[in-house]
Amino acid sequence: MTAALIGVLGGMGPAATVDLMQKIIQETAAGRDQDHVPVVCWNVPQIPDRQKSLAGEGESPLPAMARGIKALNAAGATHIVIPCNTAHHWFDDLQACSEAPIIHIASASVEMMEAEGNVGIVGILATRGTWQARLYQERLDARGITCITNSDDEMLSLFTPGCYAVKRGRREEGGALLERAGEALLARGATRLILACTEVPVGFDAIQSRLSTISIDSNRALARACVREWQASFGALQR
Amino acid sequence: MTAALIGVLGGMGPAATVDLMQKIIQETAAGRDQDHVPVVCWNVPQIPDRQKSLAGEGESPLPAMARGIKALNAAGATHIVIPCNTAHHWFDDLQACSEAPIIHIASASVEMMEAEGNVGIVGILATRGTWQARLYQERLDARGITCITNSDDEMLSLFTPGCYAVKRGRREEGGALLERAGEALLARGATRLILACTEVPVGFDAIQSRLSTISIDSNRALARACVREWQASFGALQR
Repeated sequence: MTAALIGVLGGMGPAATVDLMQKIIQETAAGRDQDHVPVVCWNVPQIPDRQKSLAGEGESPLPAMARGIKALNAAGATHIVIPCNTAHHWFDDLQACSEAPIIHIASASVEMMEAEGNVGIVGILATRGTWQARLYQERLDARGITCITNSDDEMLSLFTPGCYAVKRGRREEGGALLERAGEALLARGATRLILACTEVPVGFDAIQSRLSTISIDSNRALARACVREWQASFGALQR
Repeated sequence: MTAALIGVLGGMGPAATVDLMQKIIQETAAGRDQDHVPVVCWNVPQIPDRQKSLAGEGESPLPAMARGIKALNAAGATHIVIPCNTAHHWFDDLQACSEAPIIHIASASVEMMEAEGNVGIVGILATRGTWQARLYQERLDARGITCITNSDDEMLSLFTPGCYAVKRGRREEGGALLERAGEALLARGATRLILACTEVPVGFDAIQSRLSTISIDSNRALARACVREWQASFGALQR
């Protein structure tokens, strides 16, 4: 038996992928290089746009994502993570072509929120694709937790342009728009936010958003899950 | 023919690897995810310590590095980069087991310095392994450029503890020590620095070092070389 090797299906977008890799390092208590989590990362962004595909405006990203999943399996990944919430719309199809289990980003996020306790109404900052796939609602409903998301107007004027600004490298501009999208959810009663799109923490970090303290960062949740799997496999090896 | 796929042999250390991936994104003029450089990254830090091995105090890192090189070739990498200067001590052995050409970090750094012009005496912030392998001296001698490095005392009290502090995640502490190592070279006449150890820019960034403006960051030089290879292959595809 071998220790875990975390496979990252990245590229959606590249900055969110690097953000995850950075957070895996931050979340590891390590005194030297060799104590850090081993990661193989497929950061190949030549994947059709997920949001456009779900809106019926472009080709499916599934074949390109499946190629990445296969490359990670071939490289020996024992667990796979995908630092893109919208991509989880195709979770079942991707899991079907992966021998390694895929850790679901919404499960990791909701577990992190529960571990922190004190949950009121939860605001979900997410693409329409993520919301319509009910990735978060299913998990929160099962726990009796109410969640809300942005209106169509807020999506059009704040969330979506904020998300694409981060993708273009205009992180402060994107962060400011995304923060306003978050504030709109607080104004409607949310007391916690889930940053259910991995561009959002990248934008929030760029402006050091005051909303970060009440937010569950789905990328950080995924990073913690990676560290847990690595430590569990490492412990298993030593037994 | 296919476009380039950049393979990153990382893990030495993991933070320097993520720093390179971040710089590849920063150095790419991209308006959307799909315009970014495709990267496959083997960030597996379970590699014996390079500095200790060269000091005769530990096993060779070569077999572990060679496994990474083979995994990157199997994943389809067309060019490989290694964001660790000391690892280039084994460059010829690694190139021998790689079908994809490896872009040499010292070549990329010296080319970036020449492109910026105005070169006086160059201070090399590097491990003893990098210095003893003459990675930078050979390339600078060939151009008639004088270079100097830290004394044994400075290595012991500033450079080496600074480098390992960054590896332990104590980036500000490490950055401050590494900055003092750089200042010692300026005091002896250097007018430019080459950050010839990829922990150094990570430390300098953490303290926003004033030395950054006169420094060539070997990781940024490598990132620019990756972007150039990607753009060249992409142009070739369109012709």
